[in-house]
Amino acid sequence: METTSSGADFRRELGQQLRVDSVRVSSHAGSGHPTSSMSAADLMAVLLDGHLRLDYRHPGEPHNDHLVFSKGHASPLYYAMLRAAGAIAEDEFRTYRAFGSRLEGHPTPRIPPTDVATGSLGQGLPAGVGLALAGKMLDRLPYRVWVLCGDSEMAEGSIWEAFEHAAHYELDNLVAIVDVNRLGQTTETMVAWDVDTYAARARAFGWHAITVDGHDVEAIEAAYADAERTRGKPAVLFAKTKKGKGVAAVEDLPGKHGKPLDDPDEAIAELGGRRNLTVSVAKPDTSVPVQDCPVGRVELPSWDVGDEVATREAYGAALAALGSRGDVVALDGEVSNSTHSDLFAKAHPERYFEMYIAEQQMIAAAVGLQARGWTAFASTFAAFLSRAYDFIRMAAISRADLRLSGSHAGVAIGADGPSQMALEDLAALRAVHGSTVLHPSDANQTAQLVAQMADLPGISYLRTLRGKTPVRTAADESVRIGGSRTVRSSDQDEVTLIACGTTVDEADRAAGLLAREGVFARVLDCYSIKPIDEVAVRQAAAETRVVLTVEDHWPEGGLGDAVLEALATLPVPVHKLAVREMPMSGTPEELLRMAGIDAGAIATAAKTLVAA
Amino acid sequence: METTSSGADFRRELGQQLRVDSVRVSSHAGSGHPTSSMSAADLMAVLLDGHLRLDYRHPGEPHNDHLVFSKGHASPLYYAMLRAAGAIAEDEFRTYRAFGSRLEGHPTPRIPPTDVATGSLGQGLPAGVGLALAGKMLDRLPYRVWVLCGDSEMAEGSIWEAFEHAAHYELDNLVAIVDVNRLGQTTETMVAWDVDTYAARARAFGWHAITVDGHDVEAIEAAYADAERTRGKPAVLFAKTKKGKGVAAVEDLPGKHGKPLDDPDEAIAELGGRRNLTVSVAKPDTSVPVQDCPVGRVELPSWDVGDEVATREAYGAALAALGSRGDVVALDGEVSNSTHSDLFAKAHPERYFEMYIAEQQMIAAAVGLQARGWTAFASTFAAFLSRAYDFIRMAAISRADLRLSGSHAGVAIGADGPSQMALEDLAALRAVHGSTVLHPSDANQTAQLVAQMADLPGISYLRTLRGKTPVRTAADESVRIGGSRTVRSSDQDEVTLIACGTTVDEADRAAGLLAREGVFARVLDCYSIKPIDEVAVRQAAAETRVVLTVEDHWPEGGLGDAVLEALATLPVPVHKLAVREMPMSGTPEELLRMAGIDAGAIATAAKTLVAA
Repeated sequence: METTSSGADFRRELGQQLRVDSVRVSSHAGSGHPTSSMSAADLMAVLLDGHLRLDYRHPGEPHNDHLVFSKGHASPLYYAMLRAAGAIAEDEFRTYRAFGSRLEGHPTPRIPPTDVATGSLGQGLPAGVGLALAGKMLDRLPYRVWVLCGDSEMAEGSIWEAFEHAAHYELDNLVAIVDVNRLGQTTETMVAWDVDTYAARARAFGWHAITVDGHDVEAIEAAYADAERTRGKPAVLFAKTKKGKGVAAVEDLPGKHGKPLDDPDEAIAELGGRRNLTVSVAKPDTSVPVQDCPVGRVELPSWDVGDEVATREAYGAALAALGSRGDVVALDGEVSNSTHSDLFAKAHPERYFEMYIAEQQMIAAAVGLQARGWTAFASTFAAFLSRAYDFIRMAAISRADLRLSGSHAGVAIGADGPSQMALEDLAALRAVHGSTVLHPSDANQTAQLVAQMADLPGISYLRTLRGKTPVRTAADESVRIGGSRTVRSSDQDEVTLIACGTTVDEADRAAGLLAREGVFARVLDCYSIKPIDEVAVRQAAAETRVVLTVEDHWPEGGLGDAVLEALATLPVPVHKLAVREMPMSGTPEELLRMAGIDAGAIATAAKTLVAA
Repeated sequence: METTSSGADFRRELGQQLRVDSVRVSSHAGSGHPTSSMSAADLMAVLLDGHLRLDYRHPGEPHNDHLVFSKGHASPLYYAMLRAAGAIAEDEFRTYRAFGSRLEGHPTPRIPPTDVATGSLGQGLPAGVGLALAGKMLDRLPYRVWVLCGDSEMAEGSIWEAFEHAAHYELDNLVAIVDVNRLGQTTETMVAWDVDTYAARARAFGWHAITVDGHDVEAIEAAYADAERTRGKPAVLFAKTKKGKGVAAVEDLPGKHGKPLDDPDEAIAELGGRRNLTVSVAKPDTSVPVQDCPVGRVELPSWDVGDEVATREAYGAALAALGSRGDVVALDGEVSNSTHSDLFAKAHPERYFEMYIAEQQMIAAAVGLQARGWTAFASTFAAFLSRAYDFIRMAAISRADLRLSGSHAGVAIGADGPSQMALEDLAALRAVHGSTVLHPSDANQTAQLVAQMADLPGISYLRTLRGKTPVRTAADESVRIGGSRTVRSSDQDEVTLIACGTTVDEADRAAGLLAREGVFARVLDCYSIKPIDEVAVRQAAAETRVVLTVEDHWPEGGLGDAVLEALATLPVPVHKLAVREMPMSGTPEELLRMAGIDAGAIATAAKTLVAA
């Protein structure tokens, strides 16, 4: 058959090639999702040949379009596109899912130009919102963000967060392509092939919605052209497709999800055999110059020792100061006057993104922004970061550099009650690959740590306090990730109290009470929980007889466990004070007392330990 | 003014009373959200007087309607309703937010008839879906579920999961009331007062949508009547309201969120002063008899020692067997043929709920179902339980009894790659208040633990494996929560290997390798991670020189930390083997080796430790 690039015949042939390649690479690997790839093959063929503008040889080119496979399990199709575009060779293509290969079971940034890892459904579109926000509001470059979604993932609420935010920010550089093949893993989706219902939903959320036969390359061409013409709002194609399209043994049949075809050779023959078409993917429009990012001088705020300041306020003040660096952006989940990212928003409104009460979209947007090189800080109540935990987990797989701040830690928030108290955040964030977990006890520590987070790789998390704490750390004192601060010590210390955040004050007061009774306690402020200051912790433990950790957090996974790990090979007994009963409303003092982590409880526990 | 129950004047007066009470109780407490309460006061006055059918003196009455405050911060209004209904006295009303009071800052089940805790936005409506599912499909009683939502929380994706699922299950016993006061905590919502846009969204999701002036008691009456007449679909009111309605100093003004009024006395005067109206809330229709729940005999499946079975299959088989108990229900996130809840679905289709790819709604529905007394098991890939972490956190505050099963744990899943690998689940679930965390290594352990979970209070979590493992535990061997299994031991043991799940096999093989070199290792299978078998762990540690933990999980917060805690006061060194580098695709063997948690790595580490 005669096939020329940009003709309907070529596109049909390319679609068949993408199918054949999806079938053969998953069969070669012995696993994967060929049928989910086959349904979207024509959609991707037309995208690749004439709409996508992406220089695959220069994946870092800032003018490039972005393509996110929100249905990451269609990775055979994604890699087949890379092969057709000449970005990878046949040899590498056949390493799909093999140990060491860049072509993992679900795409990750290990294989350029992949911006974000996908595979947890409903995350690619929200990440695409972040990329599109960067293009429209920060980079100000005319690239487009294309996101291929599955129809099963339309059941994820995060998809509708993305729909709402993309329309709110008028992201007409974003195009979602929904592969409506109607069949999920085990059953038909709730909407099945009713693309009009999907379109009505999208329109109600402010999008330009187009329905199309996802196997008609001419109709797809017209739909993309329509999407590209759309101004002032994002566009979405709801494409009616058949799962396993083109192979009778699997086409539109249940029970064919996520496994290689039984007879791949026959399937390939039915699809017309192997092809070796190459697409000249359009190069991006580079006429709009890339703007230099202004690098201003940062003057961090500082406070006098003895001042009473909430660390959440110090976070906001430090972030606002960091904003002199033109690469720093901030996002918040509609609680900026609580987290105090409002101080950044006031100082740098053009680099502040209100993400409303949609924590999943907030994290995904931050991941998208950082993929374009922006230094993103995202904040909400620490308790509500739990809403986006899967997104934070996936951000680590995306190799994202991401800074999180969670305010209102622990029972010390007082009257609002347990729904607003973060008591599991240290555990959850410690268990994120490559993460850094910080919980400063005063304003000067906070400012220094926020500044260091800006240049830190991976996911870093700063836990801040609702209430004021006294500044103990001098503005010129060294504060560092992996460091700690000795609050008090003497040669006679019998017990080491290890605390962080609000419990540093309680531990110091406890040490005062103990001293009056002739018991000397060392107090260590472990503001860096991951990495913990192993040297200081081990030294303090070795110089005293027993260690007592105190944290405003459940007993599992937080400061106490970090200290236990640091002391795992030392024969010093470690005891934990932590929140063990479900808290309620009350004053901070009442709740710290109820939890047994106030000065009195610490002193009592320490005395018992020393006497033992 | 003459006011009679069920008249418009009475309702207007009642609305004013609810406002006055919201103002005075938050002022008395010194915190709270009076303005967010005032916007919904008329809506709740009309609900209380003529539509809600709830015997407040008998909150456990199975025919009662349910009222969920999804906007939990409007707790002053919620408690003012309890006062107006005679459920609490003035004295208790004034304990709002005080230490020890049942009237917490956000409602919890400590104050009946509250079914679920709210305060993390976007969770009340999905929980209401669970209650309505119970009413329609299990209890088969004609109660109605009313959910008051805020408009800010409409930005949460979980709200749209609830919209889709409620329509899919045709829950015409569910009515959502959205208080569209347009003002969030810091700014106007994305939709503001455009109730028609909300209504269009709801209709596109399959609901009967009504727009109404939320301060016109006659219009509200008509809207409720319309909602009550609706058949075959859920109904929603989008009520245009003013935040702080009725008090000029705050009405429809920004910056008035979440704090007591500056001049409560003046506000109360402006609202017409204090009132002491009492509403005779309608009693429920008790004509439909409550059905007895059949209690069938459970015959747990068992396997022969040496059989090769995946623990996820054992989960499904045990759950299907437990289904003979008529109170057991199962939910899954559209991966039932992976988690093997499909075995339950086949055996008991009438008690299986497909929740599609919407993990937040799945957990919320399970919480709603258990609030009605059903024994709910919810399952998905363990990695995707992270999507619902905030819901699991809140379920603990709801005092929910909830059983979770997460399949496909760790790098041992192989080729699918890190997005599908749960490596943080043990940490996350350990850090849930009152939780139980289990990770059996074989099928017989699994079946015994699933059976025990059914009667366990609180949140329990069973982590299962994708691949087959050999059955080591005899069917008649004791397996218990808080227990462990000694896989091998001798008097000469120098090192204790502590493992769970897939690493039990690796540890046992490592011990075999070590024995050939004359190094004797004890192997402990800690299938119960929380609570851990402290006695057995301490005894093994005391009888050997060093402990090595091995887990298919990040190093933080999992088995290793649980063991460290158990041994915190013993002078036995503990070393951890865990997954420290980001995995990729590969075979299970390759990935266990890469992570340094296979038999070879364990043997090497153990030898080094023993030689040290």
